[in-house]
Amino acid sequence: MSEVAGRVAVQVGARCLEKENGGAGLLVSGVPGVRGARVTILGGGVVGSNAARIAAGMRAEVTVIDRDLARLDALDREFGGRVTTLHATADAIEASVLASDLVIGAVFVPGAAAPKLISRAMVSRMQKGSVIVDVAIDQGGSIETSRPTTHADPTYIVDGVVHYCVTNMPGAVARTSAVALNNATLPFVMAVAGKGWRRAMAEDPHLRNGLTVHDRRITHPAVAAALGEKLYRAEEAIVP
Amino acid sequence: MSEVAGRVAVQVGARCLEKENGGAGLLVSGVPGVRGARVTILGGGVVGSNAARIAAGMRAEVTVIDRDLARLDALDREFGGRVTTLHATADAIEASVLASDLVIGAVFVPGAAAPKLISRAMVSRMQKGSVIVDVAIDQGGSIETSRPTTHADPTYIVDGVVHYCVTNMPGAVARTSAVALNNATLPFVMAVAGKGWRRAMAEDPHLRNGLTVHDRRITHPAVAAALGEKLYRAEEAIVP
Amino acid sequence: MSEVAGRVAVQVGARCLEKENGGAGLLVSGVPGVRGARVTILGGGVVGSNAARIAAGMRAEVTVIDRDLARLDALDREFGGRVTTLHATADAIEASVLASDLVIGAVFVPGAAAPKLISRAMVSRMQKGSVIVDVAIDQGGSIETSRPTTHADPTYIVDGVVHYCVTNMPGAVARTSAVALNNATLPFVMAVAGKGWRRAMAEDPHLRNGLTVHDRRITHPAVAAALGEKLYRAEEAIVP
Amino acid sequence: MSEVAGRVAVQVGARCLEKENGGAGLLVSGVPGVRGARVTILGGGVVGSNAARIAAGMRAEVTVIDRDLARLDALDREFGGRVTTLHATADAIEASVLASDLVIGAVFVPGAAAPKLISRAMVSRMQKGSVIVDVAIDQGGSIETSRPTTHADPTYIVDGVVHYCVTNMPGAVARTSAVALNNATLPFVMAVAGKGWRRAMAEDPHLRNGLTVHDRRITHPAVAAALGEKLYRAEEAIVP
Amino acid sequence: MSEVAGRVAVQVGARCLEKENGGAGLLVSGVPGVRGARVTILGGGVVGSNAARIAAGMRAEVTVIDRDLARLDALDREFGGRVTTLHATADAIEASVLASDLVIGAVFVPGAAAPKLISRAMVSRMQKGSVIVDVAIDQGGSIETSRPTTHADPTYIVDGVVHYCVTNMPGAVARTSAVALNNATLPFVMAVAGKGWRRAMAEDPHLRNGLTVHDRRITHPAVAAALGEKLYRAEEAIVP
Amino acid sequence: MSEVAGRVAVQVGARCLEKENGGAGLLVSGVPGVRGARVTILGGGVVGSNAARIAAGMRAEVTVIDRDLARLDALDREFGGRVTTLHATADAIEASVLASDLVIGAVFVPGAAAPKLISRAMVSRMQKGSVIVDVAIDQGGSIETSRPTTHADPTYIVDGVVHYCVTNMPGAVARTSAVALNNATLPFVMAVAGKGWRRAMAEDPHLRNGLTVHDRRITHPAVAAALGEKLYRAEEAIVP
Repeated sequence: MSEVAGRVAVQVGARCLEKENGGAGLLVSGVPGVRGARVTILGGGVVGSNAARIAAGMRAEVTVIDRDLARLDALDREFGGRVTTLHATADAIEASVLASDLVIGAVFVPGAAAPKLISRAMVSRMQKGSVIVDVAIDQGGSIETSRPTTHADPTYIVDGVVHYCVTNMPGAVARTSAVALNNATLPFVMAVAGKGWRRAMAEDPHLRNGLTVHDRRITHPAVAAALGEKLYRAEEAIVP
Repeated sequence: MSEVAGRVAVQVGARCLEKENGGAGLLVSGVPGVRGARVTILGGGVVGSNAARIAAGMRAEVTVIDRDLARLDALDREFGGRVTTLHATADAIEASVLASDLVIGAVFVPGAAAPKLISRAMVSRMQKGSVIVDVAIDQGGSIETSRPTTHADPTYIVDGVVHYCVTNMPGAVARTSAVALNNATLPFVMAVAGKGWRRAMAEDPHLRNGLTVHDRRITHPAVAAALGEKLYRAEEAIVP
Repeated sequence: MSEVAGRVAVQVGARCLEKENGGAGLLVSGVPGVRGARVTILGGGVVGSNAARIAAGMRAEVTVIDRDLARLDALDREFGGRVTTLHATADAIEASVLASDLVIGAVFVPGAAAPKLISRAMVSRMQKGSVIVDVAIDQGGSIETSRPTTHADPTYIVDGVVHYCVTNMPGAVARTSAVALNNATLPFVMAVAGKGWRRAMAEDPHLRNGLTVHDRRITHPAVAAALGEKLYRAEEAIVP
Repeated sequence: MSEVAGRVAVQVGARCLEKENGGAGLLVSGVPGVRGARVTILGGGVVGSNAARIAAGMRAEVTVIDRDLARLDALDREFGGRVTTLHATADAIEASVLASDLVIGAVFVPGAAAPKLISRAMVSRMQKGSVIVDVAIDQGGSIETSRPTTHADPTYIVDGVVHYCVTNMPGAVARTSAVALNNATLPFVMAVAGKGWRRAMAEDPHLRNGLTVHDRRITHPAVAAALGEKLYRAEEAIVP
Repeated sequence: MSEVAGRVAVQVGARCLEKENGGAGLLVSGVPGVRGARVTILGGGVVGSNAARIAAGMRAEVTVIDRDLARLDALDREFGGRVTTLHATADAIEASVLASDLVIGAVFVPGAAAPKLISRAMVSRMQKGSVIVDVAIDQGGSIETSRPTTHADPTYIVDGVVHYCVTNMPGAVARTSAVALNNATLPFVMAVAGKGWRRAMAEDPHLRNGLTVHDRRITHPAVAAALGEKLYRAEEAIVP
Repeated sequence: MSEVAGRVAVQVGARCLEKENGGAGLLVSGVPGVRGARVTILGGGVVGSNAARIAAGMRAEVTVIDRDLARLDALDREFGGRVTTLHATADAIEASVLASDLVIGAVFVPGAAAPKLISRAMVSRMQKGSVIVDVAIDQGGSIETSRPTTHADPTYIVDGVVHYCVTNMPGAVARTSAVALNNATLPFVMAVAGKGWRRAMAEDPHLRNGLTVHDRRITHPAVAAALGEKLYRAEEAIVP
């Protein structure tokens, strides 16, 4: 799903840059003689690198910012210098965001709220008609002015900056997403169908990680904590 | 403007393929393991080749169909085999259109209505949720079911196929279009401003070609014919 | 050797598509205006990905099918969307094989017979003059109609489909294969020559894995089982 | 047809480098750690540039030699430095040919025999097991040791060098060639069918160039000369 | 020679950006996480496009500015969006130059002094440690602060900006230049040697254009004007 | 720093090939019709692969030699066959070095002197005017004729071969290097500043590896050995 989200983010960002949607009326690719859009992608993980693929393919000027040098190195190898990679410092983020026409928030911290990398003050200094697509909105968003929107009413404007913060962005391309999800989950389904759930879980730690509760035994730490109940390990919980 | 139109056509086509807009819910690029959209571009001129650049950049499976082998050869060199080029026969058009998720009409005949390459019957056999973007709508459209729409209400659906037929597609990215237009016209403006209109026109046949009427002398064949007036050559008309 | 096999498979597949060899008389690359061959590669491991490199370089329309999404993701990054990647479902295999001019079997299961991914019935529905190159023939083949052939008489035809199933395909390019093999084995040879075989084996588990029998102690499970003899661990067998 | 010939030349050259066909047993692409074949293409016109596309796609080390700097410049732009381009001097040809594993003759002089660029003496100094594919064989060949062969018996060996000199190379991929030929000739056929042959010829100089004789008036210089008859201009010959 | 000059310009520009040579201590390519140099190339003709090839190959962020949209379009096709192309307006030049680390002057007007595109005032506002390489110095230079330098003492600094203005830049790579020059002139030499100078000149207008004086008849307008002598056409001058 | 060193090595190598610096007067890229420089890179690790990126970008003919087939495979994937990869045998090294215009030494053995891969005798057989850049000079150099030089006097000539052996090559591009170094070390600085040095070291083995001595307890094996003192493990040494 992260791959879908990263790729669809550029597509919707391109649309938001159109005049009809409140954007500056810019074509992402530009044309010969007219500069294309400057795109900054915060985060170079699965979402961010997939966004970079589509943005570079659409001929934007793309910058990816991440804290992890190994990720930046992998992107540099993949793109052969076509994409600018920057180490995530406050200065680099500010300079790049303020010069950009399209900013894509793609920073995720497993099991935690996304860090707020762009403050309300920084948004107010962005160019009028520029666009923010905050993919991290599902984890609270990485821009201070982000708030969840829907496919039916996807955007709003703060200080002249268009915000696209639809939760569940992959839902826009439901058929592609369904197949992608199926591809990823099918092996588990096959295992459960073929071996029975208990043996499948016993043999596959990834499957066990997905268990929340069985026969009154809670195996998910957050759920157990919230309910004040005892936490079981999944291995224990599935014993008959 | 043709460059802008060709590039923006893919961007809007991608959007129309989303579920919210009546499309099949497909991501143009696909993701690893899930096929991207199949895109057929009718016409390999400026509009079509620019559409091909963006569609290939977005990782679609792209086919360009044209009657002119020299154009197809140039596209093959540019794309290095990344894009399929087909000679325009009725069979090739039908097979490619029926297998496509997105069809872009980009065939223009100078000074004439665009030829109707896709009949109503063929549209009815296209896949449900597929999309037609008819850039040739400004010259009457090259699909039988095309009719002009606006940026405010850009699409309609015929037989399950989304039609995007906005006249003046470049208007969606007005700032990029304005600069592009300015780049193309500035030399003429400079010449008129620097030399006076008469000398500028006398020296530049391209400028003279733009003249319609001066001092009651009509220099545009269609206008003269419509009014039943005498037609002057521009060289005569601008003599003081 | 797998790298050589994957690359040579496309080269021989191109030849089999020629008329003289029973194929449809298709040029893998096509030319501008004429579609190139559609190539489906079953398996995206070392053999399959090397086949994809040459097939894409020859400008075919290439699809790689694999069960492992991580492999497909790596191929997508490497090829930048130039190659279609599909998750291995029965539907995807059937649709892709039936639409293909050249099918390359490149699925291997370590220590087991290759799975039969294409049935005799499916072969009978393939296009006449299409070609199957079954690199997995060394492990029994992954097409039901495959049977081993030789460099002297490499092909046969079933239901109009040319089969190339030479065991030891790398033998066709013996000099390249010899150097490649030498590159891969030289470090072991150097270790044995420099340290003596016993110390070299003691220090390197990869080398020990290659031992079958020493001083009447059998260390290869299949050999021991076949002979009904005791199985030793290599570490034990090499003790003086 | 030249495009087909250039592309098929590399495909057959790759095959001739295999051991079974008398070649050195080299894989055109090499593998990581083992050098690929060195390919020299004499002539950078339509045949030569198409050969270069496939050879580079197959990952060979490719050199194209031509007298025309503009052609070399176009190839350099297309390949971005991936292919070495050399100006055609006797020294450059000799050095490049002697270092090559595969030499493709692709020099044509309109209306004349191909120049002999490689002498018998130079062939004798080429590496044993190297390969010559002489596409210019239809015009007499550009290698002194070339003589026409057939698809049934395509190769012979001189001084250890495999020669592939099949006249009508595109015949190997007859279906691709037929469609390509059809694409190129269809506009003429349509014109003749639509306007009648006389008007079609009157309006199209390319069509007139194809006329040899009409109503006893010979319009082809070589035929007229051979028969000692008067030569008519095509415009005269087609007058009723 | 223009091709050599354009390519060598980036090579020397990279060197001038090093600290030892007065530059800012920047690596043209950057590394993952650190931005590469921003390079602006004034002029997209032979010199400028060759400079762009090397600068993009070295992974700089490259902008090419030209008045001719057709040139920019050709560069866009060649680079696939990798290089930013801008139409030459005063604003575009100023914004791009002031943001750049390396500026390459590559604007030539045949038979005239190069236009001064960068004023002394603009140089004073450039970043300290940035670099100007003025290839147009042979025609007077396109930067107001340019003055000719030599390979022995190639640079000087104005307002903290390193200037490299060596006349005859190709002389730095004399062997490459000599072969390139030879390739370009050899056909003329061959013609003169084979036909005698008079016939060679009679048949080739390019050769006649190179004539300055013969048998006291001056054929070069500037020379004739400077000496107050009669000007002959070359055709007249070479008559025996 | 290795990334900077590898990239800057090609830049300085290009300069040394210029006539003014004692080189053969070759342009690394060549021009259409004139061959570019042949570049051999000894070692395909971080330094070598970064050198290959810039050398290929500058359109040289690049060969990378390494003992590790996995590295060569990764380079082959990254460059798509654009760069020749060779397994490191004595023969391969000799043949490639003697045919090269520029040799870059980039072989490092952790904690040991670099192996001498090129003997004085081999240097004497290299082409006059060729260039050696020995990045491994910081570890003793991998060429027998290498000896450390400085940015102020960077080169010397042995047997007609220019040697560039500046220790601390990244110092030439000090600003880029400083940012790169900062990016790599900042996480450690932040940890020390945020947690105090003792806890930061306790929690991070990479940080502990950097410790040499604390409170008279030596933790670096070489230092302890040199002084004849007891060696502590870092974990012990930092206990309060």
